[in-house]
Amino acid sequence: MNEHEEEGFLGSSRELNRFKCTVSYDGTHYHGFQIQTNALSVQEKLEQALKRMHNEPVAVVGSGRTDAGVHARGQVFHFDSPLEIRMDKWTLALNSYLPKDIRIQSTEPIHADFHARHDVTRKQYRYHIYRSRLENPNRRLYWAHVPYGLDMDAIRAAAKVLEGEHDFTAFSSAKSDANHRVRTIKRLDIEERKVEDGEEIVLICEGNGFLYNMVRIIAGTLIDVGRGRSSIEQVQQALKLKERRLAGKTAPAHGLNLWWVAYD
Amino acid sequence: MNEHEEEGFLGSSRELNRFKCTVSYDGTHYHGFQIQTNALSVQEKLEQALKRMHNEPVAVVGSGRTDAGVHARGQVFHFDSPLEIRMDKWTLALNSYLPKDIRIQSTEPIHADFHARHDVTRKQYRYHIYRSRLENPNRRLYWAHVPYGLDMDAIRAAAKVLEGEHDFTAFSSAKSDANHRVRTIKRLDIEERKVEDGEEIVLICEGNGFLYNMVRIIAGTLIDVGRGRSSIEQVQQALKLKERRLAGKTAPAHGLNLWWVAYD
Repeated sequence: MNEHEEEGFLGSSRELNRFKCTVSYDGTHYHGFQIQTNALSVQEKLEQALKRMHNEPVAVVGSGRTDAGVHARGQVFHFDSPLEIRMDKWTLALNSYLPKDIRIQSTEPIHADFHARHDVTRKQYRYHIYRSRLENPNRRLYWAHVPYGLDMDAIRAAAKVLEGEHDFTAFSSAKSDANHRVRTIKRLDIEERKVEDGEEIVLICEGNGFLYNMVRIIAGTLIDVGRGRSSIEQVQQALKLKERRLAGKTAPAHGLNLWWVAYD
Repeated sequence: MNEHEEEGFLGSSRELNRFKCTVSYDGTHYHGFQIQTNALSVQEKLEQALKRMHNEPVAVVGSGRTDAGVHARGQVFHFDSPLEIRMDKWTLALNSYLPKDIRIQSTEPIHADFHARHDVTRKQYRYHIYRSRLENPNRRLYWAHVPYGLDMDAIRAAAKVLEGEHDFTAFSSAKSDANHRVRTIKRLDIEERKVEDGEEIVLICEGNGFLYNMVRIIAGTLIDVGRGRSSIEQVQQALKLKERRLAGKTAPAHGLNLWWVAYD
């Protein structure tokens, strides 16, 4: 066994194989997942790491965008490579070229027809709210702080109104370029946990697709309902009349986390 | 009521009153609590905020140091001020001059004999371990990552050995300038919680005083015991022989959090 083999590197052929990766990132220092001019993105860091491994450009195709400041526990992307690296070494090799705020969780070979964006069947986002009188500095990057009391029963009831298939025009940014705004929320659950200085409230939102800013607007709306600034009736009206102004504000990006992406 | 009064500012006399503050901070970007030349400290930020409120220097006296990168949920300090600000406005006023990674939690008037360092009767530190196969980028600033399995029963048994009054020479840095190294650990408990990708393990360490690096060396030792690299017998030997090399490595600073400081 030569040195390269010991390191898990078996050589290179010009035959391309497709790989599917799951990646976690702390979105704090990035202008979102997708490559942009003049702004740091997660995709750029991934392509830089792949380029250093391949000595040539390698394109990364993600499951979709995430906004500036949004985190991911389980973003998925694919790429093609001629490198023959032992499967258990791919994740380690990639991570060695990535900054600490981006960590590949798994790498697996996948058939050449797999497409990380087109083949998505479901996604789960989680919105993290920390309710306490005063701010906790160690939560400021990952939890949206809410200093007032929240009526959790009202929030849960309003969440039930949003579940299912609806036209979510009222819950999407004016910047959204989607024509068809009907989406299905398969699950919108609220988990709550008492901690020393307040409560952790996690909105779990699962669906077959999401409009631009949709989860953050849903989070902002449910917070408004919880503090009595909005009501179940108003949420129903927002869905029916498709008016953005009837929904709540867009909740801050740093509370949002792309939890997983599922494929058939 | 004039404008100042509405804002909670009642004026200033030259009579000094003493105040006790509790402060939380994210230690990531600081070289510890205590002021140092050429390195950013939490104390410096607090004194800058007080100086901006007073237009003159105001000294901050903390309950003790915390190392570079160590966090605090409940550090305590005192200061003297001639300002007459409505009590409920002090915390808000101070926070308005502080960066987001330092948050005053409470401010209260205290008798002039109170001393934030001399009068400490007990402190609680928490050491945060995140056990999972792969690193989670959103935990990297606040949790020490452990990728291997841990024998929690062995850790709990070793913790019981450390509880009580002992000479903790083996569990202190060579840099410690304390002559007398007998301390009492009133409580050394381990809390465990399963989360999606692993376990949160929190070491709760309460005592009447701590030597330099003591909690981090205890954490490093308990991790060694948990992975089978050390044993209860070796912990007992370390205490008895007072040899630093028999204890574990100093666990990383970012896992440590000064949870509270108690006074009589």
